[in-house]
Amino acid sequence: MAEASRTSEARRDAVFARWVIFSPARSRRPTDLKSHGPANPSPGPDDGAPKPSCPFCLGRESECAPEIFRVPAPDESPSWRIRVIENLFPALRREAAPPAPEDEEPVGAGECAVRGFGFHDVVIETPHHEVRLWDLEAEGVRDVLLAYARRVQQLAEHPAVKYVQVFKNQGASAGASMAHSHSQMLGTPFVPPSVTSRLNCMKEVFERSGKCSLCAVVSKDILVSETHNFSAFVPFAASYPFEIWIVPRQHSSYFHETDQDKVLDLAGLLKSMLQKLCKQLNDPPFNYMIHSAPFGLSSSCLPYTHWFLQIVPQLSVIGGFEIGSGCHINPVFPEDAAKILREIDGSV
Amino acid sequence: MAEASRTSEARRDAVFARWVIFSPARSRRPTDLKSHGPANPSPGPDDGAPKPSCPFCLGRESECAPEIFRVPAPDESPSWRIRVIENLFPALRREAAPPAPEDEEPVGAGECAVRGFGFHDVVIETPHHEVRLWDLEAEGVRDVLLAYARRVQQLAEHPAVKYVQVFKNQGASAGASMAHSHSQMLGTPFVPPSVTSRLNCMKEVFERSGKCSLCAVVSKDILVSETHNFSAFVPFAASYPFEIWIVPRQHSSYFHETDQDKVLDLAGLLKSMLQKLCKQLNDPPFNYMIHSAPFGLSSSCLPYTHWFLQIVPQLSVIGGFEIGSGCHINPVFPEDAAKILREIDGSV
Repeated sequence: MAEASRTSEARRDAVFARWVIFSPARSRRPTDLKSHGPANPSPGPDDGAPKPSCPFCLGRESECAPEIFRVPAPDESPSWRIRVIENLFPALRREAAPPAPEDEEPVGAGECAVRGFGFHDVVIETPHHEVRLWDLEAEGVRDVLLAYARRVQQLAEHPAVKYVQVFKNQGASAGASMAHSHSQMLGTPFVPPSVTSRLNCMKEVFERSGKCSLCAVVSKDILVSETHNFSAFVPFAASYPFEIWIVPRQHSSYFHETDQDKVLDLAGLLKSMLQKLCKQLNDPPFNYMIHSAPFGLSSSCLPYTHWFLQIVPQLSVIGGFEIGSGCHINPVFPEDAAKILREIDGSV
Repeated sequence: MAEASRTSEARRDAVFARWVIFSPARSRRPTDLKSHGPANPSPGPDDGAPKPSCPFCLGRESECAPEIFRVPAPDESPSWRIRVIENLFPALRREAAPPAPEDEEPVGAGECAVRGFGFHDVVIETPHHEVRLWDLEAEGVRDVLLAYARRVQQLAEHPAVKYVQVFKNQGASAGASMAHSHSQMLGTPFVPPSVTSRLNCMKEVFERSGKCSLCAVVSKDILVSETHNFSAFVPFAASYPFEIWIVPRQHSSYFHETDQDKVLDLAGLLKSMLQKLCKQLNDPPFNYMIHSAPFGLSSSCLPYTHWFLQIVPQLSVIGGFEIGSGCHINPVFPEDAAKILREIDGSV
């Protein structure tokens, strides 16, 4: 369908069961949609020197909360490539007592309170202040993803951790409080609400159709790029303009169980998608989130749980309609966003 | 519990079944939490003159989309107090064909698309550019609420409209594109996702306990103010710092069926809460949303549907954790926010 002929449409997806209103008339042409300003000031020439105020820079390790593990540099200089550390201002506290057994599975949907036990960790993706994730070689991005997986695996072994939300905030207006490239993860003592509704929706689709919502072949209209192991596409009912999902083509419930070889494939695709968004949308603030399965899921749930990575550029403000109804208004049809993203060069 | 002794806690509410993490360590003292800048520039002396660029001002009616109805001024000068008009850039279109019967009730939770039929209206709350909603007398706020109710009633009579989301965005960072005080409503051809999950949660509570989640007596710790007909409180699992809910004390499913007398009571309480937030939080951007029942609900659902008005100041950025998990991190415990709001004067 040509851009000009589009009129408003409401779509519901088969993963979250969320309605989205596509309203092209509320925007200029999709290609005009840009971030008002770059997420971070343009990197100047990187002299490799640490920034005086940034504790994530090389040589400032003592100013951070404790390190959990690091990925060393092969040649010992710089002395690390990636560090996984505790968050200095954790939302949940590892030293708190885990919820008591009677709190662990609150019955039904009534009011409920548990102690703020959990893990809140930070992945410093590079020792260099000015380097962005997609400036790294694919192997460097792979190592960041492998650091996520390794830490998720560690947290999965804690009996009171029910889920780990891995996420990245890039740019102040996407929630980043530090400019130095980093990601975070929160291990929670409960299954978060969006995870519950995602599983409920995918279960319903599975029970009706016998199919996993994310195993279906992706329509060419919304596909951005495909590798041997992963598809990158603009979802049929994208909540955000230029939102991208990267989904393993083979059914898989848990992100952290992905093979090393496949993680390199994922890393190349993630790097390419971030480059495309940066070029097309003027270095926008963005978030990405890994949607995996909660731990300890019964084997009967595995056929309909399929992990994926969601990238959302932050180009517009969320208002009362979205907060109240849970329904987003997106001015760019997924087919138009995918066409633009397919055509833009995804390499530096 | 004294502020100083609080440690992190996770709470789930009995209306949306949403988990929220309360993490006081991530903020300064609750009383220090302020908006960085006022939602709108401080109003100067209002000379009553229309602003040259604002089509919502008195005398600029011809620049707006068509009027649906107006509330006239008693003395004919100015010639109106409130106007309900069509949105010039509607997200959904009244002239689109309503969904065909086979589209109306999509089975299950699979992918689904319907035409972008619906209504997107604007309520101009005052003819004067510099007047904010809470600057009006309680009778003026009542008339705005009655205008909402009258328009919702009209839309309820359209067989293809399933829900009307009434909302107000105050301040650019809360989604307002016009500074002139106004609210909006969207009549949708589907039941929005948050409405579905709210009803599911309240149904589950009702089936287990025999009680409506919102009929329970509000704990004094979280109560801000109470009138004969309404309670204003910070919800037990508030997603946003200083979030307030105004709830009818008598069970009631539909906002638009509220008696005129009660609406005046609600108006006074709403005005007072907005004044308190404005004083305490430095004129913050905010949203409010009316959560009512979808139309055509079977009578068996009425015992657990209870409408309310939710006010959320926008003091912090939503990041990847919130987008991914649906779980908010709130640095201010509801009990602390309620105490501060109780103590601040709610009159001008």
